[in-house]
Amino acid sequence: MPEATVDPSALSYDEQGLIPAVLQDAVSGKVLMLAYMSEKTLRLTIELGQAVFWSRSRQEQWHKGATSGDYVRVLEVRTDCDGDVLLLQVEPLGSGVCHTGARSCFLEADNETFRIIRTR
Amino acid sequence: MPEATVDPSALSYDEQGLIPAVLQDAVSGKVLMLAYMSEKTLRLTIELGQAVFWSRSRQEQWHKGATSGDYVRVLEVRTDCDGDVLLLQVEPLGSGVCHTGARSCFLEADNETFRIIRTR
Repeated sequence: MPEATVDPSALSYDEQGLIPAVLQDAVSGKVLMLAYMSEKTLRLTIELGQAVFWSRSRQEQWHKGATSGDYVRVLEVRTDCDGDVLLLQVEPLGSGVCHTGARSCFLEADNETFRIIRTR
Repeated sequence: MPEATVDPSALSYDEQGLIPAVLQDAVSGKVLMLAYMSEKTLRLTIELGQAVFWSRSRQEQWHKGATSGDYVRVLEVRTDCDGDVLLLQVEPLGSGVCHTGARSCFLEADNETFRIIRTR
């Protein structure tokens, strides 16, 4: 079990009892996805060292990779200044984290479909 | 005005009309903060090339830096596979983005207070 220095019960969850979690690739530094955790799934994440979310669309616990095989190893969890966001350093254990099969849910900047603006 | 390739009206906003925006430092790659935008403040962000949020606590438009001077230049906005999260590449124009004065709202991993877990 990973070292835990802050109790998940000390965080600020929203009215649905959820907290957004930003997943960043620990090696490349790329932001891979944003998903939501309950206090319970955060505790499971810490225990397992793998990302466990709360699916808002399915309203159920979601151990990422349990269906696809694309588990996400969690190396570190940090929170922000007011304790209402999580930042996870992760290592995708499968081909990627996106349901489309891509490594990231945020496609590359050269993909026009997903890009909104680029300034000089 | 920056180039715009996707219309903000095509995104998925939550029941409060907001979408979470992850701010990543365009140079260091560090994740700096998460804040929320309405369609209107996203349009302002694109027009100004500076981050404009919706403050959920104050329930008002929030041009970041208007009070503190710590404006945030926005170099790029991308969305994710299902259009309900924004990822912004930014350049903080002041000392940082956090209300504490820190460069990031996610403190460094050697700050025990903000770290939850670190696995091997």
